[in-house]
Amino acid sequence: MPRTELEYPKKPFGTVKRYGPRASYALSTIHKIINTSPILHVSFNDISSPFPSILPMLGQMGSYTRPSADEGDVLDLYLHGYVSSRMMNTSRGSGPSDGMPVCVAASHLDGLVMALTPNSHSYNYRSSVLFGHAKVVEDPAERLYAMELITNGVIPGSWSNTRVPPNKAELSSTSVLKVTIETGSAKVRFGPPGDEKHDRDDAEAVNKVWTGVVPVYRTMGEPVSGPYNVVDPPSYITDFIKSVNSETREFAESAAARVPVKRGGPGEA
Amino acid sequence: MPRTELEYPKKPFGTVKRYGPRASYALSTIHKIINTSPILHVSFNDISSPFPSILPMLGQMGSYTRPSADEGDVLDLYLHGYVSSRMMNTSRGSGPSDGMPVCVAASHLDGLVMALTPNSHSYNYRSSVLFGHAKVVEDPAERLYAMELITNGVIPGSWSNTRVPPNKAELSSTSVLKVTIETGSAKVRFGPPGDEKHDRDDAEAVNKVWTGVVPVYRTMGEPVSGPYNVVDPPSYITDFIKSVNSETREFAESAAARVPVKRGGPGEA
Repeated sequence: MPRTELEYPKKPFGTVKRYGPRASYALSTIHKIINTSPILHVSFNDISSPFPSILPMLGQMGSYTRPSADEGDVLDLYLHGYVSSRMMNTSRGSGPSDGMPVCVAASHLDGLVMALTPNSHSYNYRSSVLFGHAKVVEDPAERLYAMELITNGVIPGSWSNTRVPPNKAELSSTSVLKVTIETGSAKVRFGPPGDEKHDRDDAEAVNKVWTGVVPVYRTMGEPVSGPYNVVDPPSYITDFIKSVNSETREFAESAAARVPVKRGGPGEA
Repeated sequence: MPRTELEYPKKPFGTVKRYGPRASYALSTIHKIINTSPILHVSFNDISSPFPSILPMLGQMGSYTRPSADEGDVLDLYLHGYVSSRMMNTSRGSGPSDGMPVCVAASHLDGLVMALTPNSHSYNYRSSVLFGHAKVVEDPAERLYAMELITNGVIPGSWSNTRVPPNKAELSSTSVLKVTIETGSAKVRFGPPGDEKHDRDDAEAVNKVWTGVVPVYRTMGEPVSGPYNVVDPPSYITDFIKSVNSETREFAESAAARVPVKRGGPGEA
């Protein structure tokens, strides 16, 4: 019997308001978009600033208490990057025991959707947001778990193929944030352009304007050895580059052609 | 005589705290990173939510009053995307005439920097943040200016090669935000790995671990025609794909090899 797919609860601040059919609350969908995003944008408030702030950080979903958990399970988000004192001292509208309220966003661009009219132009994309409370990880063992998780999130196998474990100075100088997730959502758009009927019936426009999708994907190039390198790039890196390159390209190309289930009109935009 | 390069003022909330040598406050650097980012992450606060929010939006820097302004001039940021009522009604800690305080972030990943130790791993990247006040553009002529600017930001020439101008319904249904920028900053990292001296002197580590950069860049694939398309992809699209692909690849590859001016140590991380 198939397991039930877990979903995040729909909260007023976390519910997708527009293009509802594109929305997903499935943990597996949301977590995968986060885990495959090399840079996450983390928003927080600092009471001394009139503006919200965004910091680019690295992050991966994981469970320290149950490391074998699946991507679709209830997980925490571990973040690495510069954790400023203003980021640490800030917790707007909640006690310090809750941690700092944050919003974390990740977006993948999969294609430029070129339509008959500017208004029907769109992107094929996958985006996620997570809302939760961030706290500094104080336990050295949990910090080590998170460092390995995040390092292997860049290229799987990186951790064990470098000089580990970190020494005491490295371990103490590394700041890791753990975000306990309250809710989240994803939005996904794929498929060809979906112009309005009156434009598709406009022979002049149809005979003038190319309509279709330019697939967009991330590519990794040939490894460039550094100045003190003396070894060849190992297969765990070269295999990773090959498999990522074929996956991202195939994903973008199939997204360009894939016809959406008709719920909100053709292409849903 | 060369013009002076304009810089954003350093405010407490907008100053880069770590890796100072990587920071830039030059308008030209910051605006270019924003303009070449197909998705911007826009953060704002909603008084009814305990969390800040982030929405992915499209945007371009421009000047409605002086459309010929350079990328390095004082510009506004025009944003297009779903402008929710909560986004509109929100202005935390300032009068409605100021507009809504926002932070806008854009990040480009240029390479995976693989070092001897997990701690010295890094990315080659370019990231920008802008802080400012966002207001809905009410003037139809300015909205039209922004729509053309943003459409041509996806692929230059898109506007005039589609069915334009937008009709009354399209024009009135499109929401555009104008962000008056208060300040901003950029961070840029390039170059090979920069391990600590004691690790570079560790023969066992150096003989075991590959160190170098895996260049990362955005690629655009072959255009995929949509179901009601009857024309060939035009040269303004195919030329754009070719030039973007060679530029992004060359940029990432040269960033991998480029040696930084020594200010904060090799590679500055």
